[in-house]
Amino acid sequence: MGTPAYTRLENDERRRRLLELGTRLFTEHAYDEISMARIAREAGISKALLYHYFPSKQDYFMATLAGGAEELRARVEPDPALPPAEALASALDAYLAWIEDNSEAYAKLFRSATGVPEVRDLVEAVRVGTADRILAGLGATDNPRARIAVHGWLWFMDGACLDWIAHRDLTRGELHGLLLGTLAGALLAAGVDLPTT
Amino acid sequence: MGTPAYTRLENDERRRRLLELGTRLFTEHAYDEISMARIAREAGISKALLYHYFPSKQDYFMATLAGGAEELRARVEPDPALPPAEALASALDAYLAWIEDNSEAYAKLFRSATGVPEVRDLVEAVRVGTADRILAGLGATDNPRARIAVHGWLWFMDGACLDWIAHRDLTRGELHGLLLGTLAGALLAAGVDLPTT
Repeated sequence: MGTPAYTRLENDERRRRLLELGTRLFTEHAYDEISMARIAREAGISKALLYHYFPSKQDYFMATLAGGAEELRARVEPDPALPPAEALASALDAYLAWIEDNSEAYAKLFRSATGVPEVRDLVEAVRVGTADRILAGLGATDNPRARIAVHGWLWFMDGACLDWIAHRDLTRGELHGLLLGTLAGALLAAGVDLPTT
Repeated sequence: MGTPAYTRLENDERRRRLLELGTRLFTEHAYDEISMARIAREAGISKALLYHYFPSKQDYFMATLAGGAEELRARVEPDPALPPAEALASALDAYLAWIEDNSEAYAKLFRSATGVPEVRDLVEAVRVGTADRILAGLGATDNPRARIAVHGWLWFMDGACLDWIAHRDLTRGELHGLLLGTLAGALLAAGVDLPTT
């Protein structure tokens, strides 16, 4: 016998609320400060029920990160109707806007890479996926120099964004221009033809 | 009464040998696989004596990293007799040569950032020190856009080097040119005048 549909909906809704709570808790506190007992208490459910949804604190943490990564991915989804360079510029602006809105969570992501091995893997998987999309847009999928240039540039972006968040002495527009200019410079140095739009 | 000089020398020598052993062990094995008991066994000393030199496995690990960082720093020390751009190009080549010789240890450094919070801090401290030297060479110490460009570029360098090590499909010279060209592009995008040499 399957689970009745209304129960599944309640399950989904509770899981969604637990993920919201986790996003808040893991942003406001260090990973080690948060216990499953405390999460259950704040959620108003039993520890046993919490463990039913997430077998460990690390699973719970990874699920909140995966949710954030999915939201970010959706927000920066390039518009396929635009030429590649414009689609990239627009996706980059959406990315910076997301970081501006979620700077605590973004900075935390890199601090959390310490302590939870899977976080580093998640960050790296996002980079690889983004690099593949950019390389496809450039028609340079099998070019090793283009691959290194784009991959390196995604690291540049994270380093620059963390610096930006820490100092807040550039406008988002200035950072946007700096990032796009750097990508153009890196591709030029890699000998990749830039799309003319 | 002070410790006799010959004992201090023996201590220094034993510490140096322990650090060499640690560099090898931590490169060949995952951090969690190595116990202090095993390190003592491989060093042929008692666990108590090992703990006399290093109060914890983490202290031991950090000491091996600090030793590697110091060796790297010495190798890439820019020549003050050269103009800044040439000194940078030469230091960068020494850096890439070091990575080529120590690719396992270099890749491990980033994997190890997971698990040992201080490793991330060490990597970041090296970046900040390097960025300061480059900014001073550019006469751009107080320029926020130059700071972000140089800091981001050091992230670019690590991302590009990790990709290079993983794929090995670029020569060191090609990577060197790509890195210098990207720095020039980033500084141009930041509106920084490049030194003319």
